[in-house]
Amino acid sequence: MKINYQPIGIVHSPFTKLAGMPIQPSRAKDISGSIEVFPEFTEGLDDLSGFSHIILLYHFHRSTGYRLKIIPFLDNQLRGLFATRAPNRPNPIGLSVVRLASIQDNRLSVMNLDILDKTPVIDIKPYIPEFDKGTEVRIGWLEEVRKREAVSDNRFT
Amino acid sequence: MKINYQPIGIVHSPFTKLAGMPIQPSRAKDISGSIEVFPEFTEGLDDLSGFSHIILLYHFHRSTGYRLKIIPFLDNQLRGLFATRAPNRPNPIGLSVVRLASIQDNRLSVMNLDILDKTPVIDIKPYIPEFDKGTEVRIGWLEEVRKREAVSDNRFT
Repeated sequence: MKINYQPIGIVHSPFTKLAGMPIQPSRAKDISGSIEVFPEFTEGLDDLSGFSHIILLYHFHRSTGYRLKIIPFLDNQLRGLFATRAPNRPNPIGLSVVRLASIQDNRLSVMNLDILDKTPVIDIKPYIPEFDKGTEVRIGWLEEVRKREAVSDNRFT
Repeated sequence: MKINYQPIGIVHSPFTKLAGMPIQPSRAKDISGSIEVFPEFTEGLDDLSGFSHIILLYHFHRSTGYRLKIIPFLDNQLRGLFATRAPNRPNPIGLSVVRLASIQDNRLSVMNLDILDKTPVIDIKPYIPEFDKGTEVRIGWLEEVRKREAVSDNRFT
């Protein structure tokens, strides 16, 4: 079975290189940028401005191949790939929950942006705590290391 | 630009028909099922069992086309598609945060499952509140209607 997707838009961000990027939106609180949705999809953005947060799904276009055990950012031990958020995955889809500042026509201004410039966006969904927020959460290996410094290096380039 | 993905696994759930399904994991608390990850990816599941919740990304394989304005479940007004979680999207990717009960070899037992049986899974990520949980959240049109009854009908079949 083949699954074929096409970009619906593109990310404009200050990050043009992988090294030195914040790893996740929570580490990128002051970073703003925008999502340019291609004009033919603009009508689908109606009503979105009422939401404070959106879920961006995007294609890690710089991803090249993957290994099933990797040393993730934030750690120094090999971990199963699906227990990490590493970009090199069998299907290199990225997910970020970002704050939506405003929408003008087909352009979304967002904050907490942790995505590389020119990344193709494949879906935008409203973030809805009732659906998306786990309760009584455990976070495995990250529990020990979550407080360490969080700036990416070039291990996935 | 074409993006090609391949399933890494398949959902086994009690839901064989779209109508009558719970709309989201939060409405499917008692529903359990499993994710069968294809054997060649099993090693990538290491360390995942330490996480209480996982993010499933999957392909809405029954989705056929889309419109940019739709009447979503939970509402009776036309809304912009990207302000909804409707399955018929330009790229029909589904996202569910589900509770991970256990892992045995290549099979994940999960709870709060709101996904159709035989749905192809394209990615599995650990759910990490620090990254994935919005704060000071507003939920637009859903604010008014979130307390209504939440069982899907057949409008997307």
